[in-house]
Amino acid sequence: MSFKLKSIPGSIVAPQGFQSSGVFCDIKRLGTGKGSNKGRKLDLGLIVSQKPATAAGLFTTNQVCAAPVKVCIPKVKAGHAQAIVVNSGNANACTGRRGLKDADRMAGLAAGLLGLDAAKVLVASTGRIGVPLPMQNVERGIAAASQSLGHDIPHADQTAEAIMTSDSRPKQAAVEFSLGGKIVRLGGICKGAGMIQPGMSPDGKHPASQPQGLHATMLAFLTTDATVEASVLQAALNEAVALSFNRITVDGDMSTNDTVLVLANGAAGARSVTQADLKSRSSAYRVFSAALQRVCLELALMIVRDGEGVHRVVTVRIHGADSHREADAAARSIGNSALVKTSWHGGDPNWGRIIDALGYSPARVVEEKVDIGYSTPGSKKILWTLRRGQPTKTSFKAQCAAVSPKEFDLHVRLNLGAGSAVLYAADLTEEYVDFNKGDVGDPASLGG
Amino acid sequence: MSFKLKSIPGSIVAPQGFQSSGVFCDIKRLGTGKGSNKGRKLDLGLIVSQKPATAAGLFTTNQVCAAPVKVCIPKVKAGHAQAIVVNSGNANACTGRRGLKDADRMAGLAAGLLGLDAAKVLVASTGRIGVPLPMQNVERGIAAASQSLGHDIPHADQTAEAIMTSDSRPKQAAVEFSLGGKIVRLGGICKGAGMIQPGMSPDGKHPASQPQGLHATMLAFLTTDATVEASVLQAALNEAVALSFNRITVDGDMSTNDTVLVLANGAAGARSVTQADLKSRSSAYRVFSAALQRVCLELALMIVRDGEGVHRVVTVRIHGADSHREADAAARSIGNSALVKTSWHGGDPNWGRIIDALGYSPARVVEEKVDIGYSTPGSKKILWTLRRGQPTKTSFKAQCAAVSPKEFDLHVRLNLGAGSAVLYAADLTEEYVDFNKGDVGDPASLGG
Repeated sequence: MSFKLKSIPGSIVAPQGFQSSGVFCDIKRLGTGKGSNKGRKLDLGLIVSQKPATAAGLFTTNQVCAAPVKVCIPKVKAGHAQAIVVNSGNANACTGRRGLKDADRMAGLAAGLLGLDAAKVLVASTGRIGVPLPMQNVERGIAAASQSLGHDIPHADQTAEAIMTSDSRPKQAAVEFSLGGKIVRLGGICKGAGMIQPGMSPDGKHPASQPQGLHATMLAFLTTDATVEASVLQAALNEAVALSFNRITVDGDMSTNDTVLVLANGAAGARSVTQADLKSRSSAYRVFSAALQRVCLELALMIVRDGEGVHRVVTVRIHGADSHREADAAARSIGNSALVKTSWHGGDPNWGRIIDALGYSPARVVEEKVDIGYSTPGSKKILWTLRRGQPTKTSFKAQCAAVSPKEFDLHVRLNLGAGSAVLYAADLTEEYVDFNKGDVGDPASLGG
Repeated sequence: MSFKLKSIPGSIVAPQGFQSSGVFCDIKRLGTGKGSNKGRKLDLGLIVSQKPATAAGLFTTNQVCAAPVKVCIPKVKAGHAQAIVVNSGNANACTGRRGLKDADRMAGLAAGLLGLDAAKVLVASTGRIGVPLPMQNVERGIAAASQSLGHDIPHADQTAEAIMTSDSRPKQAAVEFSLGGKIVRLGGICKGAGMIQPGMSPDGKHPASQPQGLHATMLAFLTTDATVEASVLQAALNEAVALSFNRITVDGDMSTNDTVLVLANGAAGARSVTQADLKSRSSAYRVFSAALQRVCLELALMIVRDGEGVHRVVTVRIHGADSHREADAAARSIGNSALVKTSWHGGDPNWGRIIDALGYSPARVVEEKVDIGYSTPGSKKILWTLRRGQPTKTSFKAQCAAVSPKEFDLHVRLNLGAGSAVLYAADLTEEYVDFNKGDVGDPASLGG
């Protein structure tokens, strides 16, 4: 893409007309004993547009989906929203009717305090599954968050921190670009770490075109001061997520709570991006779309890099499958294979495990046609270890060197058709196992 | 089943008219330096029936399948065989035309030494993928193995040892039963450890009835002195494998080499089990079938219990799915989820991860209908932790106690239809990761 996209600080408050906050209200009920800061981190965030905004979103396709997801889907469908209230520490999933009431109450409380219609307040949660939200704490948190809103960078930092669970660091990105002569900004925050293989759709249902077997809780919230029609915002978000959040895997587990939301408030005063722009894929649509894709991809990669126990990030690039769908299936078979992932952890160029995972994937594979190689990220200079199903003369030492960096690309050519796919995957380490086997004494280890 | 099946020692040599052997011929090319026994273990086995036998087999459905699998499929289809030659240390997979020639040569050499037609000698391999067999060593091995055949228990022990790769111990079982007034015996050996989620079919192709996404090298060789028509032997083996080897998972990776073979030599002199017996499911068929199922299940469970790094074995029992196929998909989604498996390792009764894995499985799931509980293996006394999607009053302590044994049953009721499935699964441990990240200096870590 040849659009000028400049990285800027401030993430969700970088665009004009947005405020945010992040507070601690003890949603995990850790207690606040004197002298102990153990576990005390921000756990409730608020993002508010000062003026009405269009909205779009994508949600987990897990059949067991959390109350906030159920509450958000119809609101997002309506295409308009002005605030997002989000908590970590509790997923509000598998919480029955009470959970739905609590999610509605979160939105209602924030709406009341902000002077908005509850239909305009979106809600999201991440954390423990199957435990009702401690609503007294949540209520206190929402009140505090609504009083501490601000549009400077520290406020975005707080919100980014408030949505973290097993993340080791907050995740933020923003860009600035020109749209019809006006400066427009788009920013976002996200969280991930474990239970990460999102497969999101606008209504939580599997679209026919979506590969099956998709599977963190990942949350991402985006803001922009562009003016974008709601249906166009949704179309652009669908495209961006298909190339970013829906193309990552840490552990192959799809969460009950995966959510991506975007608000576009038009505060930059640029020309509106309309259905006509989408249809003609005008430069206005393309620059906006490119900005959204850039921020989504940056955020998605942060999730993989900061995945639980992750040491190495491997971009799996499949070419020459019978279809894009089969290419995707092949990429996921490799990217979620325990044996492939442990070999990546070991810095072991084990093409035997890779071709084995290809062979049991739903994608058609002809052993005698398979090429497997490595490159540095994004490079076209590929070191081939297998050509047409046969080992090349590349030395074992050179192969080891190719898989030793923290990040590398794995290239697989099936040489059958025109189907291709990319998957941003991670290794499987002892730390992942150690972290997730949990502390049996701590029922809060229930993820979501 | 009410048939009397008596466990007996001797595995593959327990039935009359079978001999076996196991020798070391350095297939991994470890060298045999003086004073060093490092890695020196038996690596080539031979099983021989003294008289003609009917044969049946099932093979990996991995599209990338090893040369010995390709060589065996048509021989087994012909329904008659008299010997099996098998090596460990090298899978003879992804070895092209040379691999096929080598597999044929293994069979041909054994046939020559045993005075048999090469068409009657089956062949199997397990070990490193993508490296040609060291045929000089193999030839030496086959010669030695054919000279050291015997029908006493130590000979079966040697064969069972010769097929081991990452197995910590040999795996053997045998039963004795009465068929038409005659004493008949059936025994078997197997190996497994990693790359274990077999999905085998008689011709290496996915049968329509088989769940997709099936994914060790597992090898199993069975012998019986029953008289069984080849087509009946195959039918009985299909049924037995569907209830045993195809129902286990260690790491969800299906190997290029999975093979189960059975030889029936009629040496017991019992009445023949015929197509008419199969059709009417006569008591003769049923007792033979029960014996085969018992030995296959015993061997399959040994593979899970001795899986790489495995601490806990969990029998996942799904009931009430829309179909058996969906029940199977639900069981595999749970049994292969990294998060569920690490929670088992931790002794953590984390139903949140279980219902999450159910929700992203291809099986239809209605959150409000799901029951989740635990029992001791095989017991009907279930401790329910979730009923109709809601946590029960069962204490967290009691839940922890339910998942603390080395083996337990996980019961999931979807309460939708009559589909059910059982999957013998394992936890995911730091040892698995450590073992499989391999020793980068050792290209022999390539599994298969």
